[in-house]
Amino acid sequence: MTASVAILGASGYTGAELVRLIATHPGMRVRALSGDRKAGMGMGEVFPFLAHLKLPTLQKIEDMDFSGVDLVFCALPHATSQAVIAALPRGLKVVDLSADFRLRDPADYEKWYGKPHAAPDLQKQAVYGLTEFYRDAIRPARLVAGTGCNAATGQYAIRPLIEAGVIDINEIILDLKAGVSGAGRSLKENLLHAELSGGTYAYSAGGTHRHLGEFDQEFSALAGRPVRIQFTPHLMPFNRGILATGYVRGDAQAVHKALADRYAAEPFLHVLPFGQLASTRSIAGSNFVHVGVMADRLPGRALVVAALDNLTKGSSGQAIQNANLMLGLDETAGLMLAPVFP
Amino acid sequence: MTASVAILGASGYTGAELVRLIATHPGMRVRALSGDRKAGMGMGEVFPFLAHLKLPTLQKIEDMDFSGVDLVFCALPHATSQAVIAALPRGLKVVDLSADFRLRDPADYEKWYGKPHAAPDLQKQAVYGLTEFYRDAIRPARLVAGTGCNAATGQYAIRPLIEAGVIDINEIILDLKAGVSGAGRSLKENLLHAELSGGTYAYSAGGTHRHLGEFDQEFSALAGRPVRIQFTPHLMPFNRGILATGYVRGDAQAVHKALADRYAAEPFLHVLPFGQLASTRSIAGSNFVHVGVMADRLPGRALVVAALDNLTKGSSGQAIQNANLMLGLDETAGLMLAPVFP
Amino acid sequence: MTASVAILGASGYTGAELVRLIATHPGMRVRALSGDRKAGMGMGEVFPFLAHLKLPTLQKIEDMDFSGVDLVFCALPHATSQAVIAALPRGLKVVDLSADFRLRDPADYEKWYGKPHAAPDLQKQAVYGLTEFYRDAIRPARLVAGTGCNAATGQYAIRPLIEAGVIDINEIILDLKAGVSGAGRSLKENLLHAELSGGTYAYSAGGTHRHLGEFDQEFSALAGRPVRIQFTPHLMPFNRGILATGYVRGDAQAVHKALADRYAAEPFLHVLPFGQLASTRSIAGSNFVHVGVMADRLPGRALVVAALDNLTKGSSGQAIQNANLMLGLDETAGLMLAPVFP
Amino acid sequence: MTASVAILGASGYTGAELVRLIATHPGMRVRALSGDRKAGMGMGEVFPFLAHLKLPTLQKIEDMDFSGVDLVFCALPHATSQAVIAALPRGLKVVDLSADFRLRDPADYEKWYGKPHAAPDLQKQAVYGLTEFYRDAIRPARLVAGTGCNAATGQYAIRPLIEAGVIDINEIILDLKAGVSGAGRSLKENLLHAELSGGTYAYSAGGTHRHLGEFDQEFSALAGRPVRIQFTPHLMPFNRGILATGYVRGDAQAVHKALADRYAAEPFLHVLPFGQLASTRSIAGSNFVHVGVMADRLPGRALVVAALDNLTKGSSGQAIQNANLMLGLDETAGLMLAPVFP
Repeated sequence: MTASVAILGASGYTGAELVRLIATHPGMRVRALSGDRKAGMGMGEVFPFLAHLKLPTLQKIEDMDFSGVDLVFCALPHATSQAVIAALPRGLKVVDLSADFRLRDPADYEKWYGKPHAAPDLQKQAVYGLTEFYRDAIRPARLVAGTGCNAATGQYAIRPLIEAGVIDINEIILDLKAGVSGAGRSLKENLLHAELSGGTYAYSAGGTHRHLGEFDQEFSALAGRPVRIQFTPHLMPFNRGILATGYVRGDAQAVHKALADRYAAEPFLHVLPFGQLASTRSIAGSNFVHVGVMADRLPGRALVVAALDNLTKGSSGQAIQNANLMLGLDETAGLMLAPVFP
Repeated sequence: MTASVAILGASGYTGAELVRLIATHPGMRVRALSGDRKAGMGMGEVFPFLAHLKLPTLQKIEDMDFSGVDLVFCALPHATSQAVIAALPRGLKVVDLSADFRLRDPADYEKWYGKPHAAPDLQKQAVYGLTEFYRDAIRPARLVAGTGCNAATGQYAIRPLIEAGVIDINEIILDLKAGVSGAGRSLKENLLHAELSGGTYAYSAGGTHRHLGEFDQEFSALAGRPVRIQFTPHLMPFNRGILATGYVRGDAQAVHKALADRYAAEPFLHVLPFGQLASTRSIAGSNFVHVGVMADRLPGRALVVAALDNLTKGSSGQAIQNANLMLGLDETAGLMLAPVFP
Repeated sequence: MTASVAILGASGYTGAELVRLIATHPGMRVRALSGDRKAGMGMGEVFPFLAHLKLPTLQKIEDMDFSGVDLVFCALPHATSQAVIAALPRGLKVVDLSADFRLRDPADYEKWYGKPHAAPDLQKQAVYGLTEFYRDAIRPARLVAGTGCNAATGQYAIRPLIEAGVIDINEIILDLKAGVSGAGRSLKENLLHAELSGGTYAYSAGGTHRHLGEFDQEFSALAGRPVRIQFTPHLMPFNRGILATGYVRGDAQAVHKALADRYAAEPFLHVLPFGQLASTRSIAGSNFVHVGVMADRLPGRALVVAALDNLTKGSSGQAIQNANLMLGLDETAGLMLAPVFP
Repeated sequence: MTASVAILGASGYTGAELVRLIATHPGMRVRALSGDRKAGMGMGEVFPFLAHLKLPTLQKIEDMDFSGVDLVFCALPHATSQAVIAALPRGLKVVDLSADFRLRDPADYEKWYGKPHAAPDLQKQAVYGLTEFYRDAIRPARLVAGTGCNAATGQYAIRPLIEAGVIDINEIILDLKAGVSGAGRSLKENLLHAELSGGTYAYSAGGTHRHLGEFDQEFSALAGRPVRIQFTPHLMPFNRGILATGYVRGDAQAVHKALADRYAAEPFLHVLPFGQLASTRSIAGSNFVHVGVMADRLPGRALVVAALDNLTKGSSGQAIQNANLMLGLDETAGLMLAPVFP
């Protein structure tokens, strides 16, 4: 069986990454594509790297025919997904890649995104899409909310440590290095090559980055009490990859063991040998996550470093992994592409 | 049927790229790997981006067992392949990625590589590996010589034009922009990030680049008389991709038609609409080639621009495409991976 | 004596480069700055790299007081300079960095820029700002038109060869590699880091690039008859630097001698020893130009490669060099900063 | 008066940076250059970006004539400086850029560098070269030990906070992002463009980086008791610049005030307005340091981010600043060059 999917917002980076991955997916094909401002164009015009594929022409969402579509990937900007998804035919499965359904409590959504949630009823049905931790809920879900890419990276490093109780949950610092494609195809001065290449700086620092909403929600739920981490993202002069350097308090060997045990059976999570740390170059272009642990010279402190590709495992790869589950396909179908190096 | 292959020289970039591509190849698996200086190490240690794969440990060539191996990829440095391949069991099919068997006339080899050919008998059996032009000879061959990556790029732009007789063969200029991975994993000052990033310059200019041996051989054979092009490569501050800007004399529409006709049925060759030129970003990480044509304002002059990924279509992807033919597999097996962008 | 200057359009890259260079100029100081959309802001806010300088606040042009100002640098976008400069007090010396006054014939302006020239009278007074070739006219000029950065690079490579009559003027090809800052601080998709880094492609190819207007004008004037070159620029994934690879017909030694003789006394023009070619990394951040010559293997063909920094010698450094002449200062004042490497 | 200086180790990046800065220094000129493996070559051959300068030919150290030399910059690799400096004429002032004389206690040297100190008597005379904190001792010194570039960055962020007593000295974390030129011109696989560009990873993590010897020495001396920080450097895909992200406990406003007060009169230290953080792009190519402070959402926690150019303020610019003091020149002479952007 081959599932038919539609992609809303196909003219952005996560939309294009979905198409890239589905191109060699054995059980999925693209049935329809939307791209409002580029409606009428072919994907090969919008993204010449996809020129070798036979793909539907980009349409406006209101012109789309969802009959025969099994699942919709919604790769629209934040705040527009809510209305669009609410208007989709009820029977459609949906994987949303925006931030719109990540926070279970609409009050949290309003706090972090600055406006009331427009579809609180839909929110109740949404399942948080961190596959390895919500697999059972994702399989039967109608609506899965893809995680933030930074939020995913940090959670892969930290969740098993909270679960296993091997770290002090009051003392978690994540210093994150984020490739620029996470900012999307947006026309902002700071995203220009001339501005960004050749250097780095922190952004949305001090506790203002919206992905903290996800960290707060998820870590608190795991711990059974409020957990608030310190989180500082830095914009990196490369396109793909996030490196999360986690500073935690606990025994480094126990930290390593908690991760190794938790991820032993996971196809995409690779815990490096103790004392080795992850590099973004080793996972770029793939759905894999590398996690490494090292003891610091200060007793009782450990480093946990996780790396993933923000466009793949951090968004579109994760979306397909979840869609595979929702469609009854092999969870890893289409996702075993090796990273690209050099 | 799954073919078993061995890779000699797996610790270099083309060796690693072979492994990357075979990882999702439906009809090929890696049976043995050599890497002399890194013998005893796992591929995941030498190349952490391959850590998710179960692969044989690197061995010295003399310790390898070739029983059960169907085909050997030889990704050794130039000048060492000749002796190594000569010593392999006779029944083994071989795809060589070095320069050792590209030039049919041993005198040409000596002229361009500065030493006598060490295996002239083997040379007689070797088939030049530019798949789209030597397919029939490659299929039954025992030894196929992979082309130079620059030589491949230029030939994809120019061969159909010579074949169709639409350009002046005395006036061909190729200005080439080559990503740095083509220089291999060699420890040279000019390949350091601090030296190479942020700028460009011409190298091996003036007619000294060894790939001219291939251009001379192939274009002369096509034309039936000596053809000598002008060829200037430039080192680029990026890792993957070659852009060949061809300056030719002839009618631009006829040039475009010659290319479009010649490549109409080719799965990996994509001729862009007239007036559009190729970009390396649109093929990086894939086995695809983009070729574009534009008329210049000077009457009778045309631009032909070809782009391919030097590690994929320029070497390891080409090698697998040839191996597919030699092993009776589907020619495109394992090679339809979409480019990676951004 | 210290000259007081005003900079119109200080919030763009060439404006900021002017400020950078004047910061250590012994005979010039910034008296006023304009930046329409950023009026009211300090330069250190717009460009934090200038935060250490005491500078006037950005104003709207209409609010500027030009009393006490000796010279105005006009770094406004193309097509806006004409009106602005026409409205400036008559006594002010002006160096314009836009394209508005580069083409002596208003019909040429209209041909290349698509609209009638708005200040044809001013155009008659304008001197073309390629310092080493128009020095005597620049010294007493009231209005100097800075050259295009690509046009400057190509002319440094080719002008002496036309002057000396050592090449065939019907067969000049310039393949140009241009750093992205030449495109300015404009919000365009293709200038994003995610789109541009890691690859290259040709743009404004086939004879459509506007700097051809300058090549046509200047080379024809030199030759005394129409000269039309073939010119193909490529966008490069680095910020500063242009490399022009010139393909010419003539004796390479004579070509080298013509350049070495012509530039022997020039403080910023450095002709490399015969057989060495230029690199953009060797001049980035400076006002220097490197030019190298090599013979091709094809008899009678030579390569000429010139490199300069588009923001310095290609625009703002050139502007200051011209201003030095116009103000009676030492021509090299403030411009002997060494390139920055690595 | 113009001081004559010699540079030992001029063929490395810090040696070349010294030459770059001295090129426009009004009170210093280069009298002699050493470069053992490149003895006999001109600097313009070794570093074409310096080709415009008239400079002495590179010599072997043993062939150098130090008569008439006022001061020697020693830019040799670690562990070779000790013997070389011990053998220099006694009257020569010396600024050493290596790690050889940074640690006052020879036992610390042995601990961090793995071998006994070869010149413990010289060590006693050496002054630690962090100019803003050792100015009075540097002025009359004969031997000044340049600081580590990472160590300088971290100290500029943290020293005033320890001095002012506004942070908890048991809870200092520095997450550092270091440009690759800090690793020097060494031929290592991980420094190749193909390996390094496009990603990041932590190195010398867990408390093993040698610059911790300096942090321990300096912070403990300031605090009057042992201070041990947690320090994790990351290798960045850019050439110049270090960003140190400091996680400290204390009132953010008090932290900002301590920095602003301490650096108010310093010509090269720029404290950004409260709530703004530093970027390496804003100081690259210059001797300036930017320091910014922001409060975290977690009460009592602050971020301190410092940025400097590792080759300028982190080594060669610092060396010249110290030499200026030792030679009785204006401390800022030759060092007011503005950063280069974009």
